[in-house]
Amino acid sequence: MNEDYQQARLRLLLQRWQQQGTLAMPRYATGPGNRLSDVAGVKVGHSTLADGDIQTGVTAILPSGGNLFTHPLPCGVAVLNGFAKPAGLVQIAELGRLQTPILLGNTLSVGTLFTTLARHAIEHNPELGRTLPTVNPLVLECNDGWLNNIQAMAVTEALARQALDHAGQDFARGSVGAGRGMSCFGLKGGIGTASRFCPQLQATLGVLVLANFGTLSSLTLDGVQVGPAIEPLLPGLAPQVDAGSVIIVMATDAPLDSRQLVRIAKRAGAGLGRLGSYWGHGSGDIAAAFSTCQQPDPPEDSLLESLLAAAADATEHAVLDALLTAEPVSGFRGHYRPSLRQVLDRLAANVNL
Amino acid sequence: MNEDYQQARLRLLLQRWQQQGTLAMPRYATGPGNRLSDVAGVKVGHSTLADGDIQTGVTAILPSGGNLFTHPLPCGVAVLNGFAKPAGLVQIAELGRLQTPILLGNTLSVGTLFTTLARHAIEHNPELGRTLPTVNPLVLECNDGWLNNIQAMAVTEALARQALDHAGQDFARGSVGAGRGMSCFGLKGGIGTASRFCPQLQATLGVLVLANFGTLSSLTLDGVQVGPAIEPLLPGLAPQVDAGSVIIVMATDAPLDSRQLVRIAKRAGAGLGRLGSYWGHGSGDIAAAFSTCQQPDPPEDSLLESLLAAAADATEHAVLDALLTAEPVSGFRGHYRPSLRQVLDRLAANVNL
Amino acid sequence: MNEDYQQARLRLLLQRWQQQGTLAMPRYATGPGNRLSDVAGVKVGHSTLADGDIQTGVTAILPSGGNLFTHPLPCGVAVLNGFAKPAGLVQIAELGRLQTPILLGNTLSVGTLFTTLARHAIEHNPELGRTLPTVNPLVLECNDGWLNNIQAMAVTEALARQALDHAGQDFARGSVGAGRGMSCFGLKGGIGTASRFCPQLQATLGVLVLANFGTLSSLTLDGVQVGPAIEPLLPGLAPQVDAGSVIIVMATDAPLDSRQLVRIAKRAGAGLGRLGSYWGHGSGDIAAAFSTCQQPDPPEDSLLESLLAAAADATEHAVLDALLTAEPVSGFRGHYRPSLRQVLDRLAANVNL
Amino acid sequence: MNEDYQQARLRLLLQRWQQQGTLAMPRYATGPGNRLSDVAGVKVGHSTLADGDIQTGVTAILPSGGNLFTHPLPCGVAVLNGFAKPAGLVQIAELGRLQTPILLGNTLSVGTLFTTLARHAIEHNPELGRTLPTVNPLVLECNDGWLNNIQAMAVTEALARQALDHAGQDFARGSVGAGRGMSCFGLKGGIGTASRFCPQLQATLGVLVLANFGTLSSLTLDGVQVGPAIEPLLPGLAPQVDAGSVIIVMATDAPLDSRQLVRIAKRAGAGLGRLGSYWGHGSGDIAAAFSTCQQPDPPEDSLLESLLAAAADATEHAVLDALLTAEPVSGFRGHYRPSLRQVLDRLAANVNL
Repeated sequence: MNEDYQQARLRLLLQRWQQQGTLAMPRYATGPGNRLSDVAGVKVGHSTLADGDIQTGVTAILPSGGNLFTHPLPCGVAVLNGFAKPAGLVQIAELGRLQTPILLGNTLSVGTLFTTLARHAIEHNPELGRTLPTVNPLVLECNDGWLNNIQAMAVTEALARQALDHAGQDFARGSVGAGRGMSCFGLKGGIGTASRFCPQLQATLGVLVLANFGTLSSLTLDGVQVGPAIEPLLPGLAPQVDAGSVIIVMATDAPLDSRQLVRIAKRAGAGLGRLGSYWGHGSGDIAAAFSTCQQPDPPEDSLLESLLAAAADATEHAVLDALLTAEPVSGFRGHYRPSLRQVLDRLAANVNL
Repeated sequence: MNEDYQQARLRLLLQRWQQQGTLAMPRYATGPGNRLSDVAGVKVGHSTLADGDIQTGVTAILPSGGNLFTHPLPCGVAVLNGFAKPAGLVQIAELGRLQTPILLGNTLSVGTLFTTLARHAIEHNPELGRTLPTVNPLVLECNDGWLNNIQAMAVTEALARQALDHAGQDFARGSVGAGRGMSCFGLKGGIGTASRFCPQLQATLGVLVLANFGTLSSLTLDGVQVGPAIEPLLPGLAPQVDAGSVIIVMATDAPLDSRQLVRIAKRAGAGLGRLGSYWGHGSGDIAAAFSTCQQPDPPEDSLLESLLAAAADATEHAVLDALLTAEPVSGFRGHYRPSLRQVLDRLAANVNL
Repeated sequence: MNEDYQQARLRLLLQRWQQQGTLAMPRYATGPGNRLSDVAGVKVGHSTLADGDIQTGVTAILPSGGNLFTHPLPCGVAVLNGFAKPAGLVQIAELGRLQTPILLGNTLSVGTLFTTLARHAIEHNPELGRTLPTVNPLVLECNDGWLNNIQAMAVTEALARQALDHAGQDFARGSVGAGRGMSCFGLKGGIGTASRFCPQLQATLGVLVLANFGTLSSLTLDGVQVGPAIEPLLPGLAPQVDAGSVIIVMATDAPLDSRQLVRIAKRAGAGLGRLGSYWGHGSGDIAAAFSTCQQPDPPEDSLLESLLAAAADATEHAVLDALLTAEPVSGFRGHYRPSLRQVLDRLAANVNL
Repeated sequence: MNEDYQQARLRLLLQRWQQQGTLAMPRYATGPGNRLSDVAGVKVGHSTLADGDIQTGVTAILPSGGNLFTHPLPCGVAVLNGFAKPAGLVQIAELGRLQTPILLGNTLSVGTLFTTLARHAIEHNPELGRTLPTVNPLVLECNDGWLNNIQAMAVTEALARQALDHAGQDFARGSVGAGRGMSCFGLKGGIGTASRFCPQLQATLGVLVLANFGTLSSLTLDGVQVGPAIEPLLPGLAPQVDAGSVIIVMATDAPLDSRQLVRIAKRAGAGLGRLGSYWGHGSGDIAAAFSTCQQPDPPEDSLLESLLAAAADATEHAVLDALLTAEPVSGFRGHYRPSLRQVLDRLAANVNL
């Protein structure tokens, strides 16, 4: 009977997928573009390397058009699971401010991305590190070593700079930028996004994820445990190695301080749980949230309720977005990750809708 | 169509509920009794007050039969959301050891429960606080002020002592002990339990929850957003006030140290997310995990994987257990919380299975 | 030669002590009364039990004259060493607000002090725990079990209430209130206070300590390691057992938020270091700082510099104040702690000034 | 009188300095070489750039001769003040293990040092980031932008590699390696070291500091506030800018786990306090401690007492060592930092001993 029940649930999910092209069931109203850049002033840029063994890239998030070093924004970070090599978290925890754009990349490119952001800040602030303090670059990473020859360290400062320079309100998702070589639940992962509007504070919350986590067996779509149904379809699929990660970046125009932003960021963990994730041992699961209000007049914490709810909801859906926009990629050592779309189509054929 | 889809999913869930009496779909093998006390040596006791305005009680968890003050156990605690008034967390964070049984109660009884545990430890350790250090009681709480006249402070040391003295491997769940006056998703909450067996470490993980959190609209059962379907059935239902909480206590016989136990405890957050929770602002969501191995020889962290997965899974199911075992209660100011069972039956009638 | 050097330094210190009656060498300007209540609106009260085996008490700090439950103050807490049993830290870390007066007492009275503060809050807020959330009492403690029969649990709610009710701007120091039974560097400890004025922010920082920490051998006065010189004078002195603690409470009228107050509170650790302390294993060293500005408009962090410096300096001097105002006490099991004054006089006689 | 008292204290200090060449008054027995490498197996290497505007370098600490990636060591880190840009702390907090040598450098070289350690680990572990997880480099930094043209980013991977390759048990101190361009209390800072032997655990604790913190006015030597006496001697001295930092690295052969190592590392803060430091706002004060026992069987925490005391004591003396071994340096923009030795000699001449 449980088998019948699961089968019936799966059939409903697939029917909806085929008829509507969606898996998501948002709990709250989305923003106009259902993306990070629904928060005014926030831009995203990618630079991508996709050539044989090299399947990697950089994604840049620009929180504002101004000089972040002289006009830093309130920021909070939550480490859900710290198997991770970020740069910048210590100073954000102490001072609660974001001083640079955020760069996302592969783990072994963190050094290069750090240097890129340092140089970028110097260009706009010639006394940085001299009569002014040094800068605190925020760099977040996942390991794309399954699809990408990560040891080749193919990411250069010039490439990272491109991602910064080409950022805009419109941006691609899926197998692009830092998401190029990422895997998620054994399938193709990458960049995804979502947003929610929170009437309580008349504020928008945008989320962007770099999704590279999860084992296929635990994949859960709109509450349905579909992983076990997919596994037999992909007999040769290599299990996702114990070295994933997910980065969740949140932006809001609500006038929050850093303590409140930490509270918002943490809720990414609830959203990941809904996808079947348990924040695996080897997964560096880190969420960062910033406000675009430079001088916030923070509301009472009781008014955060709908933002907390939105943060969990939008995180779940940003990962869904990454899974559904990612195109399949083959790369290093001939490794291959199929897309969720491909898998759902095969599943739909099999399940006999 | 979304309405049809949701309706169809709900129908499946209710059919299964009617035919099998279950909502749970465990992702991993349960322990023999699917309860906290599947971990050898762990006992649970309740004392309950259920008289008019007074609907409250105490639940005691005894991690071992020995003298915990002289033989403390490895322990780790995770604060998911700190709108909470626990006692004992600071020293556990510093020293990684549990020195007393754990008492669960209502928020305003924390002082009395602290004193009870101090006196209990003194009885077995006459030099405590003299030639020996003082003791660190672990007390965890939720606010039952909707159903219970919490200001009456009806919990006495004698009542708390009863819970300690009557603990056993078999224990009641639902509207008992500390769970007597608790609400969960606007319905009746209370004590629930579950366990999982983890082949990787040949270890058992047991979970007990004191469930008093959530808003009805977000209730999610086995991945189905049922809250919105229930709301119209309960037109007079008072929304759950912004003062809930959930306590999650985990026990394992795996030989873990405190750092590893913190990692396990945190995963409760992923499990709560699956129920629709986003760790609300006013909810003191705290998880504590202990090992019954006094002198652990900790395994490599990579071997924790199945315990992390189990912790999330068992937390979800322990809350389901609380919801399904709780009987309806009316109490303070005539407030009333129906049981999930009642609600599911009404829903099944309405949905026209 | 080192002996001569140490001897010469000691002689200078003692000469100054005899001629000026002071050991302190403040690095920054003190406030008008050199006490916690130099911060406008802050009051302190004590209730003391001093009868044979019972040498204990309660100290209350009232941050404002208003209703703290409805008008909580910004607050931050730093755990220097967590061998401690405080109540209230988890919620302050989450929400950054102080909702009650602060009660200081002995370790085994924490439960009673929690209940006292809960009842006190209920009196002024009849819907507390009902339509309003519950309250988060802040209780901090040290173990006075050397001089006090701590197992007798002599502190009652009525006694604690007295400390709250009798609080004023003028208050006693030394062997009073919670300080009655405390030991410090093997000598008599207790309540001490100091304050500093910070021109950078035109703000006052007040500090009150409950001093119960340190081993005699490490005692350092104005930078001179005097412990080793005192030890031979007190051949029968019982070493301070591994169960001390020091509580540092700071108040300021600077408009700081909780993150900034945590930064201030932490600096107590630098001040303790100057006294020879290394934050011993068994010492629960906890600092709490609050601002009397309910709706702060926080300054840039770079403006905190003089407050950080003041916090370290005033902590050192508040402990000195406790040591110099404490009268000798004998109590439980005939245990005795001499005062630093007595010891300095004997030392001066010996050193042959 | 206070002036006379201070003057007399200062005279004693300077007499001892002239006669014995020391300022230190260690509270506990030093190890055989009074240096980090007294802990068996630990090595230190420097590479230095000292040419006109470029006054900088790299210091490498090798915790063991083995493959740290496959045989990581227990490690704990304490952030005293987080105005800092380290890499590696998040994963050490989660897993409690050190996987690479430690590189110290200037703030803007963190990216390059990260990449160097990544490449170094790959050389010895060809499947790193592929079938094995990625590596977590530990990089710690201070801002040397007063004496060094930090924006020139003169540190290369080759230079960092030199520091790793030339490490040995014997190593230079003062204005070398990462210490080349550092300032401390407005004087010349740099690399210093000290060690203590702890009879309780029959263990050695070694400390190495990269000292770049403090304002001259707060400088305290063996408890004497000498800063104010030095200031008039250096009328043209630029005050130390608000961008210092101090890094404290501790090694021990005691078999501690990461939680215990965090406790040890924290005590650096007490030692800094004794030098007059209050962990200034703009100072990134970070301490890391590792054990050379790969599979520790941790002792009871009560046995840590002498290690905690030693950590504070050795930190104070390692900074003194840096101040006393540093040679004066002039560099970027003609900036100059005199040595403490020079200053003490001038002071001795002035004070008329």
